[in-house]
Amino acid sequence: MKLYEKFADDIQRLIRQGVYRPGDRIPSVRQASQHHRLSITTVLHAYLLLESRGLLESRPQSGYFVSLTREDSKGRARELQQSKPIAVSSSVDVSRLVLSTLRSIGDDNAVPLGSPYPDPSLFPSEKLNRYAYTAGRDKSMWGVTNALPPGDPYLVRQIARRYLENGMSVDPNEIIVTVGATEAINLCLQAVAKPGDVIAVESPTFYAMLHAIERMGMKAIEVSTHPEYGIDIAALAAIMRSQPVAACMVMPNFQNPLGFQMPDERKRELVEFAARVDMPIIENGVYNELYFGDTHPSTLKSYDKKGLVLHCSSFSKSLTAAYRIGWALPGRYRDKVEKLKFLNTLATPVIPQIAIAEFLERDGYEHHLRRIRKAYAQQANLMRTIVSRFFPEGTRMSSPAGGYVLWIELSPKVDAMRLYQLALEQGITIGPGYMFSISDSYRHFIRLNYSSPWSTRIEQAVIAVGKLAAICAH
Amino acid sequence: MKLYEKFADDIQRLIRQGVYRPGDRIPSVRQASQHHRLSITTVLHAYLLLESRGLLESRPQSGYFVSLTREDSKGRARELQQSKPIAVSSSVDVSRLVLSTLRSIGDDNAVPLGSPYPDPSLFPSEKLNRYAYTAGRDKSMWGVTNALPPGDPYLVRQIARRYLENGMSVDPNEIIVTVGATEAINLCLQAVAKPGDVIAVESPTFYAMLHAIERMGMKAIEVSTHPEYGIDIAALAAIMRSQPVAACMVMPNFQNPLGFQMPDERKRELVEFAARVDMPIIENGVYNELYFGDTHPSTLKSYDKKGLVLHCSSFSKSLTAAYRIGWALPGRYRDKVEKLKFLNTLATPVIPQIAIAEFLERDGYEHHLRRIRKAYAQQANLMRTIVSRFFPEGTRMSSPAGGYVLWIELSPKVDAMRLYQLALEQGITIGPGYMFSISDSYRHFIRLNYSSPWSTRIEQAVIAVGKLAAICAH
Repeated sequence: MKLYEKFADDIQRLIRQGVYRPGDRIPSVRQASQHHRLSITTVLHAYLLLESRGLLESRPQSGYFVSLTREDSKGRARELQQSKPIAVSSSVDVSRLVLSTLRSIGDDNAVPLGSPYPDPSLFPSEKLNRYAYTAGRDKSMWGVTNALPPGDPYLVRQIARRYLENGMSVDPNEIIVTVGATEAINLCLQAVAKPGDVIAVESPTFYAMLHAIERMGMKAIEVSTHPEYGIDIAALAAIMRSQPVAACMVMPNFQNPLGFQMPDERKRELVEFAARVDMPIIENGVYNELYFGDTHPSTLKSYDKKGLVLHCSSFSKSLTAAYRIGWALPGRYRDKVEKLKFLNTLATPVIPQIAIAEFLERDGYEHHLRRIRKAYAQQANLMRTIVSRFFPEGTRMSSPAGGYVLWIELSPKVDAMRLYQLALEQGITIGPGYMFSISDSYRHFIRLNYSSPWSTRIEQAVIAVGKLAAICAH
Repeated sequence: MKLYEKFADDIQRLIRQGVYRPGDRIPSVRQASQHHRLSITTVLHAYLLLESRGLLESRPQSGYFVSLTREDSKGRARELQQSKPIAVSSSVDVSRLVLSTLRSIGDDNAVPLGSPYPDPSLFPSEKLNRYAYTAGRDKSMWGVTNALPPGDPYLVRQIARRYLENGMSVDPNEIIVTVGATEAINLCLQAVAKPGDVIAVESPTFYAMLHAIERMGMKAIEVSTHPEYGIDIAALAAIMRSQPVAACMVMPNFQNPLGFQMPDERKRELVEFAARVDMPIIENGVYNELYFGDTHPSTLKSYDKKGLVLHCSSFSKSLTAAYRIGWALPGRYRDKVEKLKFLNTLATPVIPQIAIAEFLERDGYEHHLRRIRKAYAQQANLMRTIVSRFFPEGTRMSSPAGGYVLWIELSPKVDAMRLYQLALEQGITIGPGYMFSISDSYRHFIRLNYSSPWSTRIEQAVIAVGKLAAICAH
């Protein structure tokens, strides 16, 4: 293989992994030549080859960009299309289905393809456990008054520092520590809207968002969402011309289930739109640390000038889910959220906060994250490959830019609940599409989790789901 | 001292400690003679002496009863009177004051007389910490699916067993583990009422109840409450004739701040009344284990035949507050509360659940409880004695039958917020009465915590508060 072919394949892989997304500008010929110690000619040849493959397009005076009309030539599975939900707000009741689905995952013998949680085997639980033990030997950890909101100052400092390392300046005084991101999202939603209000969500949307809306007796309206660029701002604007929308809840990075990373320009546009119409945005950033690209993704919060973005996150996806430690950066709603936290659960236990703060202070959090990001990126590719090969003709799937879930569209003839039942009988769990919508638009979609270290058992389970999908389509 | 005088003094002490409450029948002469190996004549002499002191009264054919018009002859502080709140429902906003008060307690140098929490020094934190460490070494503890509601089966079994030991039969399947009793109360309230609804509470009431009402945008109405018998059922009935009341929230045992234990007959009456009018009762039972009498107090739940009592409790007052482990027994609302728990915080961390379950299984929980009950009863007496001696003429105070707080009524000229500020300047925290009401009926009341092991520092602080109260009354 010639040098330029090898380099072209490298770039192609990065595009497939989602490091470069459709519409992204890739490094200029001169930059690439310097970074990779290749001659200008070699880089140019590689770019021309990729252009001929339809993966790149050159734009005069601007450089090379990843094509917007990319076609995955390998395998049978195609890319997803933008969703077209019905623009009618509706009350929400998905939690029973979600809870029963999650319960089936609790069975240790089941293959947890339906799990929304990261496989804990890659997480530093031994170290955290030791830090918790050491913290617990300090008598002062056993009071409650030091556990009152906003949160333990040691952890708060570590969280603020981590944002700074990722290029986002955060006021530590804005941070409210919560019982997981779930509580953070609930409190933020309660701070900005009241029962009966309409909340705009992505379509499909992460069911935790729907749960918060359900709990508060609010209504949801689903907004058309592109599988790579995220929520359609024009569609959102159109909805708001016909009815009042109290707030918008989105997951701009590695959305669950679609896996996209909203391009920076889109993020900025969304925040500017919200500022114009004075609409709060609840940003769920729990997957932000799990990117497959070279750099940490930006947040909506970083574009926010009016304090309208309520940013929520947690350590549950990146360090440990067992401690249920999350937080909110609620912008101008900070005091309201702090008060609601106090009313909702009074205090967040201190010992786990200290254990996490110690890990962040003393151990290589970034090192740990690099390891799991790499594992997830590889496992995403493996799962995509298996789905491409073994799922029925006509299957479409997401191309995750981070996180650990894959979203799969099956034939419209498939009922995901039936598929779920059949898979469960074989000891395999999957996430039925019903959970991600207030309508049944996703009745033929499923979500698969690829956070578990790859194994024959996982591979065989994915293949088995593909075979069952074929059966369900007949 | 003669034998009958000694026995009379024993009985008098039990009455003062609240073991026998006004209106209680004390053991018959024959029973007492058998139990204490005293002659019939000795017991009879003792009872006659107590009758002459105005502490007992004999009723023909019925036996001896503790006088209803008991006067504390020692010291200057008198008993409290039944509250007469204004029967107008109102929206609630006490949480800011409570949070800022609790924060001042967080200062390690302050004397924590204002704390609502038990002093952790009497709690087995080392053992719990070791159990938590051992549990955390088990990889399976680090998942999330096993932390989903209703709760860890090991802990749930221990909770059910504990109720059984206290004479209350409980279906383990009814138990929902929560993030402290705070979450349990919130979920139960949301399960039975909606925003705008009116909720009946005791007067004064524990502010955690007011917080739950505030958080849900409901309204509170305060019901006249007797300092020894609890909520006035006739007054509650009268309110309900003039306006709809969606639910009632009470703390029948060792109410915070009044410290009373509702007599069994009153409990039964309240539950029967609720059944007649089909009104759910949220029962806060967090202090149930901290009784000063001989036997575990009964619960409203134990009289409930219609599933209308939602019983909430936690380990925060009796074992450790740091873990934030509580639970609900929501009666007929069980499934609703389980769903709301899932929506509110998703999961309750498992490791602390296991640590507590291990302690209950392996160590003497009852032994630990006996130790703290004894300490609290002694400390209550000491604090009552100091208040009697050093607080200004006209001071009234509660006679706690359990728990660890004393409720003190000062001269109407005293503003508890001013007293709070003056005490804080001397490094002493107190609980201002404002926190316990939606009106300012208790502006001249304070709550003092006696859970800390007695010391000169505590004693001097109580005396100092008494002196400041005298200053504020001028």
